[in-house]
Amino acid sequence: MSDQSNQKELLWQSRFSEPFDREALKFSSSVHVDGLLYREDIQGSIAHATMLGEQGIISKEEAGQIVTGLKAVEKEIESGELTPVWEDEDIHTVIENRLKELIGPTAGKLHSGRSRNDQVATDTRLYLRRNIDRIGELLKAMQSTLLDKAEQYKHTIMFGYTHLQRAQPISAGHYYMAWHSMFGRDAQRLADLRKRANISPLGAAAFAGSTLPLDPARSAELLEFDGVFTNSIDAVSDRDLVIEFVSACSMIMMHLSRFSEDVILWSSAEFNYLSISDAFATGSSIMPQKKNADIAELVRGKTGRVYGNLMNLLTIMKGLPLSYNRDMQEDKPPLFDTAETTASSLSVFRRMIEKTWLNEERLARLTAEDLSLATEIAEYLVKKQIPFRDAHRITGKIVAYAIEQGKTLPTISLDEYRTFSEAFDEGIYDDLKPDASVNSKKTAGSCSFKSVEEQIARAKAAR
Amino acid sequence: MSDQSNQKELLWQSRFSEPFDREALKFSSSVHVDGLLYREDIQGSIAHATMLGEQGIISKEEAGQIVTGLKAVEKEIESGELTPVWEDEDIHTVIENRLKELIGPTAGKLHSGRSRNDQVATDTRLYLRRNIDRIGELLKAMQSTLLDKAEQYKHTIMFGYTHLQRAQPISAGHYYMAWHSMFGRDAQRLADLRKRANISPLGAAAFAGSTLPLDPARSAELLEFDGVFTNSIDAVSDRDLVIEFVSACSMIMMHLSRFSEDVILWSSAEFNYLSISDAFATGSSIMPQKKNADIAELVRGKTGRVYGNLMNLLTIMKGLPLSYNRDMQEDKPPLFDTAETTASSLSVFRRMIEKTWLNEERLARLTAEDLSLATEIAEYLVKKQIPFRDAHRITGKIVAYAIEQGKTLPTISLDEYRTFSEAFDEGIYDDLKPDASVNSKKTAGSCSFKSVEEQIARAKAAR
Amino acid sequence: MSDQSNQKELLWQSRFSEPFDREALKFSSSVHVDGLLYREDIQGSIAHATMLGEQGIISKEEAGQIVTGLKAVEKEIESGELTPVWEDEDIHTVIENRLKELIGPTAGKLHSGRSRNDQVATDTRLYLRRNIDRIGELLKAMQSTLLDKAEQYKHTIMFGYTHLQRAQPISAGHYYMAWHSMFGRDAQRLADLRKRANISPLGAAAFAGSTLPLDPARSAELLEFDGVFTNSIDAVSDRDLVIEFVSACSMIMMHLSRFSEDVILWSSAEFNYLSISDAFATGSSIMPQKKNADIAELVRGKTGRVYGNLMNLLTIMKGLPLSYNRDMQEDKPPLFDTAETTASSLSVFRRMIEKTWLNEERLARLTAEDLSLATEIAEYLVKKQIPFRDAHRITGKIVAYAIEQGKTLPTISLDEYRTFSEAFDEGIYDDLKPDASVNSKKTAGSCSFKSVEEQIARAKAAR
Amino acid sequence: MSDQSNQKELLWQSRFSEPFDREALKFSSSVHVDGLLYREDIQGSIAHATMLGEQGIISKEEAGQIVTGLKAVEKEIESGELTPVWEDEDIHTVIENRLKELIGPTAGKLHSGRSRNDQVATDTRLYLRRNIDRIGELLKAMQSTLLDKAEQYKHTIMFGYTHLQRAQPISAGHYYMAWHSMFGRDAQRLADLRKRANISPLGAAAFAGSTLPLDPARSAELLEFDGVFTNSIDAVSDRDLVIEFVSACSMIMMHLSRFSEDVILWSSAEFNYLSISDAFATGSSIMPQKKNADIAELVRGKTGRVYGNLMNLLTIMKGLPLSYNRDMQEDKPPLFDTAETTASSLSVFRRMIEKTWLNEERLARLTAEDLSLATEIAEYLVKKQIPFRDAHRITGKIVAYAIEQGKTLPTISLDEYRTFSEAFDEGIYDDLKPDASVNSKKTAGSCSFKSVEEQIARAKAAR
Repeated sequence: MSDQSNQKELLWQSRFSEPFDREALKFSSSVHVDGLLYREDIQGSIAHATMLGEQGIISKEEAGQIVTGLKAVEKEIESGELTPVWEDEDIHTVIENRLKELIGPTAGKLHSGRSRNDQVATDTRLYLRRNIDRIGELLKAMQSTLLDKAEQYKHTIMFGYTHLQRAQPISAGHYYMAWHSMFGRDAQRLADLRKRANISPLGAAAFAGSTLPLDPARSAELLEFDGVFTNSIDAVSDRDLVIEFVSACSMIMMHLSRFSEDVILWSSAEFNYLSISDAFATGSSIMPQKKNADIAELVRGKTGRVYGNLMNLLTIMKGLPLSYNRDMQEDKPPLFDTAETTASSLSVFRRMIEKTWLNEERLARLTAEDLSLATEIAEYLVKKQIPFRDAHRITGKIVAYAIEQGKTLPTISLDEYRTFSEAFDEGIYDDLKPDASVNSKKTAGSCSFKSVEEQIARAKAAR
Repeated sequence: MSDQSNQKELLWQSRFSEPFDREALKFSSSVHVDGLLYREDIQGSIAHATMLGEQGIISKEEAGQIVTGLKAVEKEIESGELTPVWEDEDIHTVIENRLKELIGPTAGKLHSGRSRNDQVATDTRLYLRRNIDRIGELLKAMQSTLLDKAEQYKHTIMFGYTHLQRAQPISAGHYYMAWHSMFGRDAQRLADLRKRANISPLGAAAFAGSTLPLDPARSAELLEFDGVFTNSIDAVSDRDLVIEFVSACSMIMMHLSRFSEDVILWSSAEFNYLSISDAFATGSSIMPQKKNADIAELVRGKTGRVYGNLMNLLTIMKGLPLSYNRDMQEDKPPLFDTAETTASSLSVFRRMIEKTWLNEERLARLTAEDLSLATEIAEYLVKKQIPFRDAHRITGKIVAYAIEQGKTLPTISLDEYRTFSEAFDEGIYDDLKPDASVNSKKTAGSCSFKSVEEQIARAKAAR
Repeated sequence: MSDQSNQKELLWQSRFSEPFDREALKFSSSVHVDGLLYREDIQGSIAHATMLGEQGIISKEEAGQIVTGLKAVEKEIESGELTPVWEDEDIHTVIENRLKELIGPTAGKLHSGRSRNDQVATDTRLYLRRNIDRIGELLKAMQSTLLDKAEQYKHTIMFGYTHLQRAQPISAGHYYMAWHSMFGRDAQRLADLRKRANISPLGAAAFAGSTLPLDPARSAELLEFDGVFTNSIDAVSDRDLVIEFVSACSMIMMHLSRFSEDVILWSSAEFNYLSISDAFATGSSIMPQKKNADIAELVRGKTGRVYGNLMNLLTIMKGLPLSYNRDMQEDKPPLFDTAETTASSLSVFRRMIEKTWLNEERLARLTAEDLSLATEIAEYLVKKQIPFRDAHRITGKIVAYAIEQGKTLPTISLDEYRTFSEAFDEGIYDDLKPDASVNSKKTAGSCSFKSVEEQIARAKAAR
Repeated sequence: MSDQSNQKELLWQSRFSEPFDREALKFSSSVHVDGLLYREDIQGSIAHATMLGEQGIISKEEAGQIVTGLKAVEKEIESGELTPVWEDEDIHTVIENRLKELIGPTAGKLHSGRSRNDQVATDTRLYLRRNIDRIGELLKAMQSTLLDKAEQYKHTIMFGYTHLQRAQPISAGHYYMAWHSMFGRDAQRLADLRKRANISPLGAAAFAGSTLPLDPARSAELLEFDGVFTNSIDAVSDRDLVIEFVSACSMIMMHLSRFSEDVILWSSAEFNYLSISDAFATGSSIMPQKKNADIAELVRGKTGRVYGNLMNLLTIMKGLPLSYNRDMQEDKPPLFDTAETTASSLSVFRRMIEKTWLNEERLARLTAEDLSLATEIAEYLVKKQIPFRDAHRITGKIVAYAIEQGKTLPTISLDEYRTFSEAFDEGIYDDLKPDASVNSKKTAGSCSFKSVEEQIARAKAAR
């Protein structure tokens, strides 16, 4: 048929009597996805050709021709001159076909001792390494912004929450340093998986190794990998790192979703503890008074996307026999989407956080009169030798009394206090101050000003 | 800044003192995704404008102008003349801005009594309805192909498997009718959710309803919805149908993944029961003898994609307060991807199945000599009044003997049989034939030729 | 070995030369899970035995003996006299072995024409049907409670939210009716899947049907199924309904997680719109003032559990070849856990909601002075013939002015208003009242008192 | 009410006027789950009490009394003397209440400076550490078994597969070493996360730190933690490690699911490459000839369980505000289930693998005559200076010819070969032998005997 006749020939069709179905080709074509890998693909091919030349498998001249040709192809793709179409099947074919046009049959020698399987595994690892580093940088920037906020608000007192109930007053700097810790662990996880990612699979060929005297260690070195595969089957059929990377990003997004939740809550009219710059808030097309924390909502929503990508990958790999199966091609959409979503979420969220401010006056007023100082009463009684359980019980009764009387804890008189326990004296009022409460905490890592200053100093020293 | 100065004005910015951040805009822009909804958006807007005109909220002339303008915009998008860019934020803005250019300030009246919230909910339901019908058609086609295969192979005997072990011989037609049942349930599920999908949310406005004398029943009628929302909060904040649709598609993909597994197994060298047309198989760029069932592998792999989309949506909606939150914008990528993945998988898989053939000769030879006839021996003994448990035990011993002696069940002599039980006589050899085994099944819905013929007849009558 | 010697004999070991490994048996034993199915298993066996007797496959006396024996076994399990141990492998074996002890070798005839495969499929469908009905009842009760709340608060005005920002005042009854709609759809979904669930697989035997003259329609009738399987392979290898049920429960839990979020927010100190009875709140062992909405938090948390069960099931089924595979045994833990989690969450959450009260005074005060009346200004201007876009822009400026001046909208003077637009006159103050705003909504299904009354009336008529 | 009257008093109820609802208590009780943590809880409490005594917060005598009492409670739980009931709420309450009965009011002092929040975080980390080590040991044992298998079969030739099609012959030892690599990475991941897990949260109290002069470093030391928390909010609200552990287990299960798939395939009648000991296979109650690889099927099925647990945890944590929320209690069921499922799967699967044998004779026969030697022809031609693409094309035609003629590659005559290319000479037959093919691979990590011997040697040196 005329429609079939101008179909590009596929590399593997020699023994087949019928052309590949057009709809099937479109269905299986990955070029709209793996097109993103063109740089990695060319980088890998240059290393492979160089090694082939050094090993004498192809001549130095041929290697040189191939490398020059590949660089030309890269420029053409970058400039938009060469645009892949779905009929090309995948980006590797696009590059190889164009290389052939540019340098002739020598192009075919690039395939010596290499299969699509180890080629794509190499590309993926180069992509992973680049994105691990990119997200690592963004995490560092995030920590730096958090450190600035912690510094700025280290002596500001806000509520600490459990169960979304005001629990105890804390230094706002302590709050920001909590996020600093989380993103620190995220960075550590990426560093750990980078060790596993930075191993070259090039030279594993289809899965069994090659009959040619390749030097996989040399191509690994050219690509700045730290090591080389030890088992060729594993090298081409392993997708662990893709999953591990998406797991690590799921954790980052989980952290961001929690941070988003706090931003959304705190910028509600009811909380009103946080102001977001107009540059990072949106309004409503129908309700003119609205100012919405859309960026935080979107980041929270995109968490589902990365979780979904993780589930996608785990499902793909479940129950697949060794070694390579075509299902594995489907690892790229969730991988790429995860890297982009995580990187852009980290970036925009961090910039938004930079442009948020605590409403310090309101926080100062509210923390001073709140029942969350009740813990101070209990601890005051413990210092007076009253067993903790009893102290808790007495304080509970005082709280109930305050609510009933519409009083705040500092406005209850000493006489009133003494009806609950004779242990009370004037000293209680010294404890019923938010800053006294915050700074009464003695443990390292606590919410006191001193502890927060130490946390900041340590974090600064470490960066 | 000059970069900001040529930024398009956003609809909601009147009370804001700073322009929206460019990176934040890019991050929140959905036009590259919801651009796919342009037809639904224009369809919804035409119905809304028509209703506004009929209700006298705008004049008939204005309504006419808007409708004409919208149709012009639709043509421009279809022809590629109007191409959304990310600065446009979303497809609704693209259309509205272009409408304003075409017909002037009257364009603004289209927004009377409508919010982005009910607008996008309407678009989504129109999209859902269209894709429910599209996938419904593909399921019908799949069932039709399966019916053809069942007809073709109704008297072919193959192995039925449990635990991937040959269990009992069955009619191959029965096998195809099993898939027919599954896709039938899938169609039923879509029909059920279509009832829930085909309800109009238009008129709910932002979430509280409108002060204008809208006629939501009329716009519903114009859009061929079966009913209209009963609660305006629910109308804009409900994403149940998106989730229910993706759940139903997950089930379809799960069925396809199982069918794919069978196709892959059966076309392996070891099974070799099924031939796939060259038009739907691929080869290897390094191993010239390979013929791979790539389409089946890809479909199996894409199952993860739809599962991931489901998890994405469930995560997005988890714990969101009422009513609309921006997170919900993230429902569209998984919805669209699911509809496309499911539809294309069904389509290409069905066409591949059409081009597969059972290797009947090989099946006939193998089923005739296989130990899977052992059940016949047990049932033979039961007919001879031996309790089932004993019959099973005796047959187990005969099987062990056959394996040990390297014999098939029909080649064990009667004398040999009688050493295991005196109940055996010549009649046993009549039962030790695959077709006798298959046709000894008496229950409706069983694997016998007669049952399969009935199943086919019933299915034909129902379509 | 002595350890092995007292191992119970397994039904299928006749041809095996070595006993099943103890650790493997423990690993594969399901009795600690499927023990829950004992009632369904006995119910199914009674129907099967009765049918066998009616068909003359076994004698009426034998059928009678079996039925009497099974009832005795049921009593023993119920009373705790008979307790399964893991060595029993599964509940079916427990029951069968005990039956044999009670009535002797006739017990073996119960297995005529039945396999573990169709037996367990039958049990599962009976369990599903029971739990669909149970959860259906709980949804009905939930709707009834919501109707009571809607009735109670139909004339109470609260804030409607989008993006967790106060958007427009609404009738609190409207809010409760939104949940009423959601749980209504949940009930509908269960009703839809019940049709598919209520089909008997009994008679499919291992997967190929039986050689005995069974009457599957009769056993279906005895078990009050609405129909009987049409394809025996599908009958034993289909787990669609388990997945569909868990999908439907995921939606219910998603709704509950959203409702929980609102309860948690509203009972925070900052919102303080909702009071929860002490009977459904908890305190803190360290902070005496705390009153936490733990039940809502737990329900929100358990959402993950049901989502996880769904992902579990989808993963199990992905890529399994036909027909039965042992993996499918793993469907029961997520099924049972989902039914229990959903039912208990619905039940306790509903009872908690019954014991919550809106803080009406606070709501009245806050809604009267809030900027969320701004939409009224915009709509007022539209009524004065100002195009919507302009009206929105003007209102935005007024909002900014109010924030800057620390005024509420009703306290801005007419002179001030007229500096923004000459269209303003005294009438604006009539619109700047929450109840005027709420009742200005004209569309059916809106938040007005009238609409809410209609919604309530319709819901009452329908129950 | 009498039912309420005998309810145990809950620790936090002092300010509450109504008792906690029974159904709500049952719903929120976690003792049936966290009962598993009793050892960790007591271990943590002993360390805390010891530190309190050393710091002089309580007297040495009191500390001694508490420690003695806790050890007595531990023995009572171990012996079954003390059995938690759901009314106890959680295991911490069980232990504390019993301690009070044993040693009187001093028991209350154990709570000094400690909250349920840091207590449960400590217990969880102790549990995690123990299970990381337990699964680490099982992975080591698995690798050891695989090394034995690799040694045993290093000179056995089997098919390597891609797309489940025979691709190239390989050393079976290479196949086993591929799994060895995967489980090695799994162990590495656990080692990485152990560093993050082995940090003490004890001393963070509710989330803000304590006013008492605790020494968190000392209690960390007593519990053999490597470090101590740096931020008290993060210490109690972080569930990263639970998720990271379940992610790592998901990867292990994914690997096991793939290995299971191969075991199931290879022990099918069609492949018949692998024999499983009767001790790890099951039969059928209805089909006497069946021998099923149930253990592999169950392990494959249980993969869904661990994936589901991961999704459960990610969902729970999504969007939770800081710091502790009750939702987090729900982390324990998926954590415990994952540890048990992964450990038992690894253990029983490894023991099964030990008891499997390759059917060497069959493999030798099949690999010798298979088309998978075609790659040798292509590589032969490349050695004869024919460009790879042409060599592939020629070989494709030879394969088509062999299929058509029903010949194997070694039985095609030289004359026939030369009709396809004149480059062929007698030497081709030397290459058309499986062992020649396998041993022609020259790259390190390839499937050759020499490479496999090196892999084994290196792995032995490393353990």
